[in-house]
Amino acid sequence: AGKSDHQPAGLSVDFPVSVVLPAGGTGERTGLRTPKQFCSLLGRPLISYTVQAFERVSWIQSVVVVVAEENMDLMTDVVQRFRHTKVRAVPGGSTRHRSIWNGVLALGEGEGEGAVVIVHDAVRPFVDEDLLYKIATAAKEHGAAGAIRPLVSTVIATTSEGYLDHSLERAKYRASEMPQGFTYDVISRAYQRCSESDFEFGTECLHLALQYCGTNAKLIQGPPTLWKVTYKRDLAAAESIIKDALSRSACVITGGSASGAALAGALREAVGALGTELEVVPDLRGENARCLAKEGNFILVSVGPSRPSEVEALLTELEAANRALLHPLVVIWVHMSDSDELSVSGRAAAVMDLSSAAKLRNILLYGIQLHPSKDAERWERSVSRVAELTSVLIRDRSPALVGQLLQA
Amino acid sequence: AGKSDHQPAGLSVDFPVSVVLPAGGTGERTGLRTPKQFCSLLGRPLISYTVQAFERVSWIQSVVVVVAEENMDLMTDVVQRFRHTKVRAVPGGSTRHRSIWNGVLALGEGEGEGAVVIVHDAVRPFVDEDLLYKIATAAKEHGAAGAIRPLVSTVIATTSEGYLDHSLERAKYRASEMPQGFTYDVISRAYQRCSESDFEFGTECLHLALQYCGTNAKLIQGPPTLWKVTYKRDLAAAESIIKDALSRSACVITGGSASGAALAGALREAVGALGTELEVVPDLRGENARCLAKEGNFILVSVGPSRPSEVEALLTELEAANRALLHPLVVIWVHMSDSDELSVSGRAAAVMDLSSAAKLRNILLYGIQLHPSKDAERWERSVSRVAELTSVLIRDRSPALVGQLLQA
Ligand SMILES: [Mg+2]
Ligand SMILES: [Mg+2]
Repeated sequence: AGKSDHQPAGLSVDFPVSVVLPAGGTGERTGLRTPKQFCSLLGRPLISYTVQAFERVSWIQSVVVVVAEENMDLMTDVVQRFRHTKVRAVPGGSTRHRSIWNGVLALGEGEGEGAVVIVHDAVRPFVDEDLLYKIATAAKEHGAAGAIRPLVSTVIATTSEGYLDHSLERAKYRASEMPQGFTYDVISRAYQRCSESDFEFGTECLHLALQYCGTNAKLIQGPPTLWKVTYKRDLAAAESIIKDALSRSACVITGGSASGAALAGALREAVGALGTELEVVPDLRGENARCLAKEGNFILVSVGPSRPSEVEALLTELEAANRALLHPLVVIWVHMSDSDELSVSGRAAAVMDLSSAAKLRNILLYGIQLHPSKDAERWERSVSRVAELTSVLIRDRSPALVGQLLQA
Repeated sequence: AGKSDHQPAGLSVDFPVSVVLPAGGTGERTGLRTPKQFCSLLGRPLISYTVQAFERVSWIQSVVVVVAEENMDLMTDVVQRFRHTKVRAVPGGSTRHRSIWNGVLALGEGEGEGAVVIVHDAVRPFVDEDLLYKIATAAKEHGAAGAIRPLVSTVIATTSEGYLDHSLERAKYRASEMPQGFTYDVISRAYQRCSESDFEFGTECLHLALQYCGTNAKLIQGPPTLWKVTYKRDLAAAESIIKDALSRSACVITGGSASGAALAGALREAVGALGTELEVVPDLRGENARCLAKEGNFILVSVGPSRPSEVEALLTELEAANRALLHPLVVIWVHMSDSDELSVSGRAAAVMDLSSAAKLRNILLYGIQLHPSKDAERWERSVSRVAELTSVLIRDRSPALVGQLLQA
């Protein structure tokens, strides 16, 4: 998630790998009515980010998402809207283990021959290819593998009366996380042999593999980003990670004028200091068209009279490049011109008009009005205001501010 | 934090209670240069929120913050800037236990006679009075008490070769969290008797109380908000909790006109649906002055020609009420008037001017221009735009957008 410009890691495996993604939770702990895997981050449900994390891994063949019966339509809609191709949704069981087993059964033996099955959580969207590779290859070699993390808190045993009995030595224990991987053989044998009570109350697949197949899973330390989105605050944390990833760079289109290029150069420094790298191009022709495919943020500099047609052209190109499917794109139209009342007002109306159409295409258009000044100090102050506004617009991606013409 | 309007819970204890707050961490895990307890949330360091959580509890007498030598000046500055009164900063030791022991020693025996010492983390700002009361009274009764949470992940024991050895039965164990409480007697005896190795490698005060004083701590389940701000994403999560708390309600000042009152009524519904409750008053005189003390968000409605003096008067009253010390206040100036070019431009300049002075006083001033319409549908659309902009301005409290005149 937030890695739509993710480079393939060049990893590959010589055995089939599929994923089972139990997504049946009802999300009571977030305090929200929507189950957390369907909560929206920048207009897209969390589950879609998790699915995307697997779809971009070339050596993963298919993803079975196991959802509660009442969410099947919702999931089907997510698959269609965000054009997920490796995904099938199947109905879940009454417990986590029954759901995972349903998912494994849906894979079928055909897909299963010599295969590895990765089990993950729908609410851990930031899993990366490197860890998936380690889990898949370790599972192939050892029969089972699981991600672990150091314990965050000391773990204590309690007496039945609610007093401290003893604390565990932290160094000897780990938190068991997701993803986990199994050979198809191990996970299906474990579920075939396990008891009703395991299906009902068990939580750990690794434990079933040990108990029913004698397989000691290989443990692999994962990064902190593996954490599970559990509470409402975790949604804010996840959104912040996604927004960080989306605001790392932007493309400035200067229009070729000397004053446009001068502004772009000054912005590059100021915005760079705020954390976003700017690539400056005169236009998007030829070589420069690569920006259309690469960037999610565009700053279009206009000098002199407003020409909404420039913005329209950019919006049309972005739409043709189909770049706004998974994340909203940001387009900031920076006008540099003398403050002439009627043109400012006309420009404000133009930004508002253009933005309504763009918003339907998941493109967020904002305007910034910059009044040029011969006074060096005033000019610098204006440029740093443009930089500050630009950074905030790119970082926040606020739909409410779309169409506004801000003053620098 | 975010509870500056917190009502006293009416709890009290008949023994002295002090707090030791180890804040010596260097915050490597956030990936930020600033140690996380000094990272800024809405312009105020995290540690100040945590200190505030104790300061607002009437029956807590003093807070000793133990900081690394190199952060003593920073901490002294925080205490002065945010006018913390119950706080002393003392230099820490080389490990967590040495720092806590320094803090206990700084309390001294005078303060210690019959007293309870609460130990907490600087990076858990959301601890509430109710839990502190339970910990303090349980510590008084049993010698020691500690907050616990259910385990989030299964805990597993690993073999020395990195394989699963066994998983623990989740129901029998708990995560040990903060705050913890001790009688002065128990905590000082535990530290006097413990070994160099305990000082160096130990993590749990509860464990020392058990080992060296034979005291089995009483365990008390705390809320999920007790979590520890550890990673950069946790700062985003904490900020989101603070922003939620600050945007629960706002005061609309209508100026007394019929059209102002009509707009306020429509806004109350629309903004209420977005999660913020609006109290509508004609002005802040007499009874209505209570809003000055209660609210952190103000919407000032102007009908007709701009009168910056109205805004200036509100800013002056807010400054006199000294309400912007701990959190930035939001003032939104909503103009309802026919779109007359010169007045819009004059108003934009007035908002920008007033906002610069207000910002220095930690008051964030924004403008919204609303064009009245006789057409019911257009009017409704405009009102819902004002509601949307108002909600976002109050929720985001963005310093970069201060002084802008947004169009509704
Ligand atoms: Mg990851
Ligand atoms: Mg709390």
